[in-house]
Parts: sequence; C-alpha cells; structure tokens
Amino acid sequence: MNYRAVETTDEYVARLETGADWRAEIESLADAVDADAAWFTALGAVQDAELWFYDQSECEYDPIAFDEPLEVASCVGNVSRLEGERFAHTHAVLSDDEGTAYAGHLNEATVWAGEVHMRVFAEPLEREYDDTTELDLWL
Amino acid sequence: MNYRAVETTDEYVARLETGADWRAEIESLADAVDADAAWFTALGAVQDAELWFYDQSECEYDPIAFDEPLEVASCVGNVSRLEGERFAHTHAVLSDDEGTAYAGHLNEATVWAGEVHMRVFAEPLEREYDDTTELDLWL
Amino acid sequence: MNYRAVETTDEYVARLETGADWRAEIESLADAVDADAAWFTALGAVQDAELWFYDQSECEYDPIAFDEPLEVASCVGNVSRLEGERFAHTHAVLSDDEGTAYAGHLNEATVWAGEVHMRVFAEPLEREYDDTTELDLWL
Repeated sequence: MNYRAVETTDEYVARLETGADWRAEIESLADAVDADAAWFTALGAVQDAELWFYDQSECEYDPIAFDEPLEVASCVGNVSRLEGERFAHTHAVLSDDEGTAYAGHLNEATVWAGEVHMRVFAEPLEREYDDTTELDLWL
Repeated sequence: MNYRAVETTDEYVARLETGADWRAEIESLADAVDADAAWFTALGAVQDAELWFYDQSECEYDPIAFDEPLEVASCVGNVSRLEGERFAHTHAVLSDDEGTAYAGHLNEATVWAGEVHMRVFAEPLEREYDDTTELDLWL
Repeated sequence: MNYRAVETTDEYVARLETGADWRAEIESLADAVDADAAWFTALGAVQDAELWFYDQSECEYDPIAFDEPLEVASCVGNVSRLEGERFAHTHAVLSDDEGTAYAGHLNEATVWAGEVHMRVFAEPLEREYDDTTELDLWL
C-alpha cells in the first residue's frame, strides 16, 4: 500500500448547475480553484446517467446507461492530473423511484441538483498507467 | 456552478442513540454545537427507514417505506438553515440481509447504531426556493 | 446522542495494493501512521467480497459472499481500538457488471484498485461492548 501525507489548503461547497454534466461540473470547480489534487463527497439527483463497470479480465470499461431520473445517494471521488488535464474520478450510488440502487464509476450524468464538498490538497496527484490493472492510478 | 470557500471551525464524531430518529439525531448534534452549516458522512444500521424519491416531473417527493432492519452502508449529507430551522439534508444507502441495496433521500429511520463524522463551517448555509427544480437549495 | 470534538492531526491519501485485503490495507495504513482514531472514505474495485449483515434479533453478523469482480462505489468507515488492536469499521457499496448495487459491513475483499482518504484524530477512539445492541461501540 502506497500512501502520502497531504495538507488541505482550502475547502469548498458547491451547488452543481441543473442541466450540466455532473462530473464536468466537479472538474469545473477544480479548474476554478486551481485544484490539482482534491477529495470530494456529494449528493443530489440526476436526470440520466452513464455508469461504467471495469471488466477485470478484459481490462476495459463497459458502459451501463440509465435514461430516467435518479437520486444520487452517495458520490465519492478525487481530482488528479491525467494526461495534462484535471480528472474527477467519480463513483456514485444512484436510486430509482422504488428505492432500488445502482452503482459504479460515474462517467456522465445530467444534473438535476447536486451538492458537493471538496477539500483541496497542496500536493498534486498525477495518474500514470499501471501495468497490472491497466488503469491510470496515482501514487 | 456556484461555489463558496468554507473554513472548518470544528469537527465532531458522534454515536447516534439506539431507538432515536437518524436524521433528528444529526440535527440534535448540529444544535448542540451551534452548527448553521456542516458536512457529514456516517455509517451504521437502522430498524426501519423511510426514503424519499424526488419526482422531477411532478416536483414532489414520493416516500418509500422499509419496515425491516437495514445496514446503513453509506450516508452523506449537510446541515443548513431552512425556514429558520437547522436541516440535515441526508442521503443514504441501506442494505438488507441478502446484501441488496436501497437508496435515496433519507427522511426518517430508527437508529440501531450510528457513527457520524461532522465538520462545521464558519459560514452559514441557507436554503431558498429554486424555481427550476422546486427544491430548497443553498448558494 | 454522544459526541466528542476531535482535532485532525494529519491526513493521508493511499492507494491499496492489488491482491491485498481491502480492510487489512486500511488497518496497515492506520498502523503505519500510528492512528488510534481516524475517519475515511474510499472508492475502487475488488475481485471478490464478503459483506456482513447484522441480525438485530439474534445479535450476530451473517456473512454474504460475492465471488466476482465488483466496483466499490462507496466506502465509509473509521479506525478505533478494539481489544487492543486497530480496527477499521468499514461499510461499502459494491456493484456488478449490470450496475446492480450490493451493500453492507465489509469484512473482507480482495483489492483490484483502491483509493482512500484518511483523516487522523488526536483523540483515540476505543470500542466497548454495548449491552443493548451487543455491538462494540465507541463513545
């Protein structure tokens, strides 16, 4: 296990814009506050969503599309640098009108309402290709 | 996207009381420590629960009741002022004895055991009516 | 409700080792940084998992085993002392290749990839037996 001490330089709360993309909004926040490394949690609701599941045998992401309104019951993720851009690695738990939960890596989702808490770290996090998992990982 | 820098003035861990209401307990903590804005995550178990799903067409919440013991696998939320009261906006992921997950906006639930981490912000958050979503949002 | 003010002395981000146990890795991090009390959130993926559901009538945990790759869509927990050892109380929401979510108390899981944020508190947390729930609780 690799770890690093981090120092929080500043913290933010944000309200995501109705109609915008959930993950792009978080990346916009990171851009706005110059965050090259950050941790966030969030909650809210979306109008649709595309989750990704990582196929550990094929080493590729498979998309799962939801074309209906869903609650965002949980959202945990972090911001790091990936190929020169800020990337919000975002996992989420969604739920429908019967309370049934769906979850995974959140690629995109149209915001209905979203509330985010982000803490920005002094030390940048940079993703690099990992041979074992074929994922881009930091540390 | 609207955002605001916040400063954490103090942090707490809390154990929710068996038999009490999950959300009311979090609001009691906010009252006890004079928190007009805070962010929390939590985990535990409940004896029953009422989740709410927001119907984005009708702009109203529909309740989903669970009359059985459930784990609280995830709970993320925040405290703000709503119509002069402290309100804990609380989303949760619950699970039953087969590991099946249910999720949504947590209106009420009877605590079996609950562990909370709360960070209190210096700047108050106030919810106001939003015309687009017909929700009470802050910022 | 019992609560305690805590002071964060230091914070860490960590990448869990592929092939290691998810919870043991978090406890290794706590050992490495001498954390007798901490709060964490995490995300990632696992190769298998064993969730526990607490039977509130029998007051015992029942295991639920998953022998397939799963996303870790959410993970919330804390570190405390339990019978002289550091214990990472870990709840998680997992999801499969259809986005179906499973959740509960995470006993063990083989890491595929894992990203953790941990904040360490100055004040130790110690679990003791609670007569009502027959759980080991702190505060």
